[in-house]
Amino acid sequence: MTDTDNSPLRAARAVDSDRLRARLQGLASFGAARPGDIHGGVARQALTPQELLARRWLATEFACRPGYSVGTDAAANVYIRRHGSDAGAAPVMTGSHVDTQPLGGWLDGAFGVVAGLEVFAALDAAGLRTERPIETVMWTNEEGSRFAPGLMGSVAYTDPARLAAFRDTADAQGVTFLQACNDAREDFAMAAREAGWHCFDAPLARPLHAYIEAHIEQGPILEARGLQVGCVTAIQGVRWYRVTVPGRSAHAGTTPDAARDDAQAKAIALAHALLEYGRTQNDEALRLTLGRWHCRPDSINTIADQVVFTIDARHPETRVLDALEVRLHELLPAGASIDTLQRKPTVAFDLSLIELARQACRSLDLRHADMLSGAFHDAMPLAGFCPTAMLFAPSIGGVSHHPDEHTGIDDLAACTRALAWCLAGLAQAGDAASIEANNTASFRTG
Amino acid sequence: MTDTDNSPLRAARAVDSDRLRARLQGLASFGAARPGDIHGGVARQALTPQELLARRWLATEFACRPGYSVGTDAAANVYIRRHGSDAGAAPVMTGSHVDTQPLGGWLDGAFGVVAGLEVFAALDAAGLRTERPIETVMWTNEEGSRFAPGLMGSVAYTDPARLAAFRDTADAQGVTFLQACNDAREDFAMAAREAGWHCFDAPLARPLHAYIEAHIEQGPILEARGLQVGCVTAIQGVRWYRVTVPGRSAHAGTTPDAARDDAQAKAIALAHALLEYGRTQNDEALRLTLGRWHCRPDSINTIADQVVFTIDARHPETRVLDALEVRLHELLPAGASIDTLQRKPTVAFDLSLIELARQACRSLDLRHADMLSGAFHDAMPLAGFCPTAMLFAPSIGGVSHHPDEHTGIDDLAACTRALAWCLAGLAQAGDAASIEANNTASFRTG
Repeated sequence: MTDTDNSPLRAARAVDSDRLRARLQGLASFGAARPGDIHGGVARQALTPQELLARRWLATEFACRPGYSVGTDAAANVYIRRHGSDAGAAPVMTGSHVDTQPLGGWLDGAFGVVAGLEVFAALDAAGLRTERPIETVMWTNEEGSRFAPGLMGSVAYTDPARLAAFRDTADAQGVTFLQACNDAREDFAMAAREAGWHCFDAPLARPLHAYIEAHIEQGPILEARGLQVGCVTAIQGVRWYRVTVPGRSAHAGTTPDAARDDAQAKAIALAHALLEYGRTQNDEALRLTLGRWHCRPDSINTIADQVVFTIDARHPETRVLDALEVRLHELLPAGASIDTLQRKPTVAFDLSLIELARQACRSLDLRHADMLSGAFHDAMPLAGFCPTAMLFAPSIGGVSHHPDEHTGIDDLAACTRALAWCLAGLAQAGDAASIEANNTASFRTG
Repeated sequence: MTDTDNSPLRAARAVDSDRLRARLQGLASFGAARPGDIHGGVARQALTPQELLARRWLATEFACRPGYSVGTDAAANVYIRRHGSDAGAAPVMTGSHVDTQPLGGWLDGAFGVVAGLEVFAALDAAGLRTERPIETVMWTNEEGSRFAPGLMGSVAYTDPARLAAFRDTADAQGVTFLQACNDAREDFAMAAREAGWHCFDAPLARPLHAYIEAHIEQGPILEARGLQVGCVTAIQGVRWYRVTVPGRSAHAGTTPDAARDDAQAKAIALAHALLEYGRTQNDEALRLTLGRWHCRPDSINTIADQVVFTIDARHPETRVLDALEVRLHELLPAGASIDTLQRKPTVAFDLSLIELARQACRSLDLRHADMLSGAFHDAMPLAGFCPTAMLFAPSIGGVSHHPDEHTGIDDLAACTRALAWCLAGLAQAGDAASIEANNTASFRTG
């Protein structure tokens, strides 16, 4: 291997923004609500025909190319592998997901997958080979909108014992996750046979050298600060609560204040005090959202006998979330109750990978900063499995999960160049007279 | 007419609580959710088969009796008339409605109708005749739960021009009010033919000498004060508002406080300030209820882009409601809007009829007090048409519109005795050797 020091830079410079855009636009046509318009919104929920076609379209291009192979696993995750010179080395993995919310934007998840494939194209164009294989993965059901919860594919990969619990989860039509995975794998195998390529069975929990995922920020911070790339240091902790406040139903006109037990009035007082507590912390990192609010009987002239609302609380420090939880319990009116729906601690990424990401940005002269991820990503379960980090591209206006979701192609290309720099370094890229064509190499197991 | 002074007392004393209870229990069996159990709840919405059977059952008993006749009108209101000696005199009217909420209690509306019929039975038992006819009416669609708004029958009676607007109103199945009224009248006419009595067509807006309606309080005041009868002086004013607070949808985890436009947080602040304003007025008569609350997209991890909630504000004095409305506008965040859904001024009842009700209670030694009605009743439109008043019986725990709605039979009988005293006086009751059997007398028109 020669010229190793220079290879990451050559890989990064070979990233082509036109090619990146073309593949992103092509992907956006699968499930497009308004064909030809990337801002009409994309409806491509997990393992639906739209998503299966999109996965097949992306995989087929590389499956037929020398030096690549494609596999799938029990959770219907799809791996596009660019072979390395050391077939036995643990791969470097990148990627994300191509499933969307019921009507999502064109970049959430899609960008991370297409960025990985653009790095492949850049390595090919630069004539670079790597010692380690690189894989671009499409994780199954990241969004969790068809099958709840989300992150099923990446969780199953990193902790295969949890797949059993996911299998019986059904969508709104009663289709189980198991059935959908089996159908998807069968569909994928058939597509491979038709196109004349071989689809490998990939075991879950294969060892990985590193995982690095590119994603749009889905928040407004990078854009507001005029930055091109975010080097993500952690995914902040989150707690979800459901608060149930009971009352007594009575006629709005006939019941004096003293005789009322108004669930709505009590819930409003509680919610107001909690939001006030949040504001007075003067802590920019604290995120407090009351996203759902249901009152019963929901009648204009009847005093509510029950209000149920939810709290989404996030902060990188456990002590801050603990203090909020104590305050919530203090504020709770008599008879009210709290269900904890989710409790995820802050997930810190690998320090040497974070430093690698910073180095990439410095070498490429990209305006960058460390930042937290406010949202969940497939990198969250991966972080407990192998060295993991993420690169963020800005989101215009912070808009995501919405047809208006957008990022300029220059910012997407900048983030992809940083990704190429990291992947080339991690996989030990170097000059190659010819890339070994090993289109039938099977995945290493165990 | 002899012994006039003593007649109201004789009528009141002839009220029989067993007969009253038997007819109330019989009526409760029409639409009973648990047959035989008055506390299983009653499902007898306007002009449904259950309500038509109930009306027919009540009417048939009197239609076949000498001295009575039964009629219906264009709004399918049903009148059971006890003839007076002066066929041309404007009738004294009592009654209420037998329709219920989707699952209501056994007394709301039902009590006022059965109380009127028990007064008929008492007058018959006491051998009293009256100069003026007395009618017990069953108004159509008081509740407004099948066809909105409520009070359609009594509003159409007092202001026939408004019937045209009601006719096209459809229920959830697309049946129009016109169709339902026509079907009900046809059903009623057929029932009359089968049973051998004649059903009269009654014009709307026939002049009335007076209207006095008995009803359960549907609030906790009489019970809390140990009273038997409420002499209702007015129906308090009400305003209904729908408040729409806009925001901008964004990810709960990725959006810092400074970048948020959270509709939920703004709506909670507004609602809290409004309820605080209400509390600090220290005005026992002010009723403030936020009955509905809808947030969009109603997702646990998405900042709401819209909250819509309703306000039901009631007070007997216009200036108090005006001040509340000013405060609401002051508190409104930028971009938020208010729709006024209803604006009804306080409806004062007839002073001489209120005094008559007090006299009845004093003469019968009933614990009573003047009070306001917090709820709407058919007496509201009637008050603009003829001298009108109401008598309230206590509601245990103030519960209404609920299967638990209840009042002890002694309290129901006490209120019915007060009603009998008033009706006998208003219709100028006196001894009668025989009640003129005029079972075919038609209603006076115009």
